Amino acid sequence: MKRDKAELVSVPDLSGESSGETGRVVAMEKRLLTRMLAACGRPPITLVLWDGQELTPAGGTPVGRVLIRDRAMLYRLVLNPDLEFGEGYGNGRIDVDGDLPDVLVAIYRALSGAGSGKLKDRLMERLYRPRRNTLDQSRHNIHHHYDIGNEFYRLWLDRQMVYTCAYFPTEDTTLEDAQTAKLDYVCRKLRLEPGETVVEAGCGWGALALHMARHYGVNVRAYNISNEQLAYARDRAQAEGLADRVEFVEGDYREISGGYDAFVSVGMLEHVGVANYQQLGDTINRCLKREGRGLIHSIGRDRPGLMNAWIEKRIFPGACPPSLGEMMSIFEPARFSVVDVENLRLHYARTLDHWYARYRDVEDRVAEMFDEVFVRTWRLYLAGSIAAFINGDLQLFQVVFNRSGSNRVPWTRDYLYREQ
Amino acid sequence: MKRDKAELVSVPDLSGESSGETGRVVAMEKRLLTRMLAACGRPPITLVLWDGQELTPAGGTPVGRVLIRDRAMLYRLVLNPDLEFGEGYGNGRIDVDGDLPDVLVAIYRALSGAGSGKLKDRLMERLYRPRRNTLDQSRHNIHHHYDIGNEFYRLWLDRQMVYTCAYFPTEDTTLEDAQTAKLDYVCRKLRLEPGETVVEAGCGWGALALHMARHYGVNVRAYNISNEQLAYARDRAQAEGLADRVEFVEGDYREISGGYDAFVSVGMLEHVGVANYQQLGDTINRCLKREGRGLIHSIGRDRPGLMNAWIEKRIFPGACPPSLGEMMSIFEPARFSVVDVENLRLHYARTLDHWYARYRDVEDRVAEMFDEVFVRTWRLYLAGSIAAFINGDLQLFQVVFNRSGSNRVPWTRDYLYREQ
Repeated sequence: MKRDKAELVSVPDLSGESSGETGRVVAMEKRLLTRMLAACGRPPITLVLWDGQELTPAGGTPVGRVLIRDRAMLYRLVLNPDLEFGEGYGNGRIDVDGDLPDVLVAIYRALSGAGSGKLKDRLMERLYRPRRNTLDQSRHNIHHHYDIGNEFYRLWLDRQMVYTCAYFPTEDTTLEDAQTAKLDYVCRKLRLEPGETVVEAGCGWGALALHMARHYGVNVRAYNISNEQLAYARDRAQAEGLADRVEFVEGDYREISGGYDAFVSVGMLEHVGVANYQQLGDTINRCLKREGRGLIHSIGRDRPGLMNAWIEKRIFPGACPPSLGEMMSIFEPARFSVVDVENLRLHYARTLDHWYARYRDVEDRVAEMFDEVFVRTWRLYLAGSIAAFINGDLQLFQVVFNRSGSNRVPWTRDYLYREQ
Repeated sequence: MKRDKAELVSVPDLSGESSGETGRVVAMEKRLLTRMLAACGRPPITLVLWDGQELTPAGGTPVGRVLIRDRAMLYRLVLNPDLEFGEGYGNGRIDVDGDLPDVLVAIYRALSGAGSGKLKDRLMERLYRPRRNTLDQSRHNIHHHYDIGNEFYRLWLDRQMVYTCAYFPTEDTTLEDAQTAKLDYVCRKLRLEPGETVVEAGCGWGALALHMARHYGVNVRAYNISNEQLAYARDRAQAEGLADRVEFVEGDYREISGGYDAFVSVGMLEHVGVANYQQLGDTINRCLKREGRGLIHSIGRDRPGLMNAWIEKRIFPGACPPSLGEMMSIFEPARFSVVDVENLRLHYARTLDHWYARYRDVEDRVAEMFDEVFVRTWRLYLAGSIAAFINGDLQLFQVVFNRSGSNRVPWTRDYLYREQ
């Protein structure tokens, strides 16, 4: 068999290159790409290669175009797609033409629909070891994400800086209103009463703690290990005259002390790590009064699995969204009773829609604060998260619990949906 | 040390005796009883022994009196309390003076509050091996409980013969209305639409299947392995002109075939056994359409554990209420997504209150159908179940799920609580 001479191009050296060779795409490479697309379930996207050649999907109109700008990037992508798609997009060696969330949804959908196979398995379930979340490591991990600077988050979050899934009572609720509605929904699920004490594990910029104190008359102790967030939250408590009822404490959930009527944690569990859940359950057990109630709000998954490697590396070191079964290792050994679980997955997709649109509007200002790789990395992270929630790769669980046998429970859930 | 001569009474032979010796209670036996009561957390009950001697609790007014009518019964109780309390009550060698559910709640509460210890552990966690639920064994087990006779259940269940936890929209809803409300609540959680197809696993006397067809315009195939229940359900479908839209099939959940828009199972999972959950998940996976929804309603527990030995022996052979974590082995391997979990524990206590009161009213008629042991056994089972739900030893979970990534989900849960 006669071999096409052009195929004898050597695989580029991937160690440390800044941008790979850009000679003509050879037949072998096109076959490799065709195979990769088939393993990905043939997403309806056009692949554009560094020499201008295009691979179009067989039927239907493509949702958008993915550009691979050099040969080395192609090989990186084939070898380690989970990580390298994000890396390549961040440094501009991969680009996307068309609506980024739509293109990513199309790719995720195709991947979910693809049959299994060796390449698919490698694409989908590439093993990645999450970092250990010791006290020190947790502080380091949290600093990585949350101490980027309050100014950055202020550019695209809502007025109250709530960086977790909102609750949209109707589909056209604004983000501002939906975040307030979420704070309220959490308080109502906890059935807070004036004079009660609440402990919050992982309080972000303090919006929930301040909302509980202001609107439900409770006293709150809120823990966080992000210094930037704590400074912001304390300033806000002072400015709003709530400093006597909300105490912001620098500390990890493992350092919580005291006894409380309610435990609440919104968007912290993702950073805890399944191996530490029993310890979290012990902590709650230690700090909750006999008739106490608790609520944990967390990103989750339908089955145990690992975080996307790129997200773990660039965005959330140490993060791991649990399955509901995994979450039970918080509650069952410590003898808690699960009262209510709600999956708000599509509310997180909607929240991220808002964040993404706002972020796109302020990218020029982000570029003044950080470099272009940062701007693109966060753009991809937000768009990819929309896709993950729409496609069902990620869930959002709100779990309400109390002590086993406590009969201080609402008779039905309808009070949550009555006009106040 | 001088030994009290009366203590030299020998432990009675427990093999096959119908009623034990009734000589005077000796000091050693009183010490044994005192120790047993301490291990049980000192419930506020008076213990009355066969010779008329009483042991009263230290403080407070006793809720009631427990009578132990002979010496052999006492030793049986100490050796194997989980089983022998029920056995003794059934055959009249133990009796209870006072409101039976109240006395049992007091005992359960005391047990839950008692510290741990060897005797307590034996009392609480006595190992009991549940029967294996093969197809044949399942048929045998189900026959044991559900084929006692429709006439028996008709005496004390609601008009529609619904033998599962009702849903009381308000605390004063009648049992009849609460069972209808439950059927409706299940249909609304499933978001049934006219023309859809539904498969029901374990359909009892057919009330839910018929309700779905009549009020939601769906076509139902309902499986059951209890012949008596099936005969009743088929008669009802004929009489109500629904036989063309509801098919009652004699078969186990493992024998379900076809493709459906919805899967529903109310009060069957308790009989499946945790070891078979993955197989149940596979069955649902096989029979549910792409945008299908499912609901499983089951008695559960806050943590894995075994069924009370006496209930397992006399009432529900092979039964095992799962923890929520155990239930996840139905959903996670088969890639289902849990949308909603509600714990209706106190609704089951209320349902049982109604059943118990009705049962007490018809005990004379039950006595015409069965012997006195049967009458007392079922009285204790109903009263004990009230106590188990009030005390939190048992839970009632309703889990709604769909396929991972299906976006046919309600935007919020408020539609469940709006006036229809």
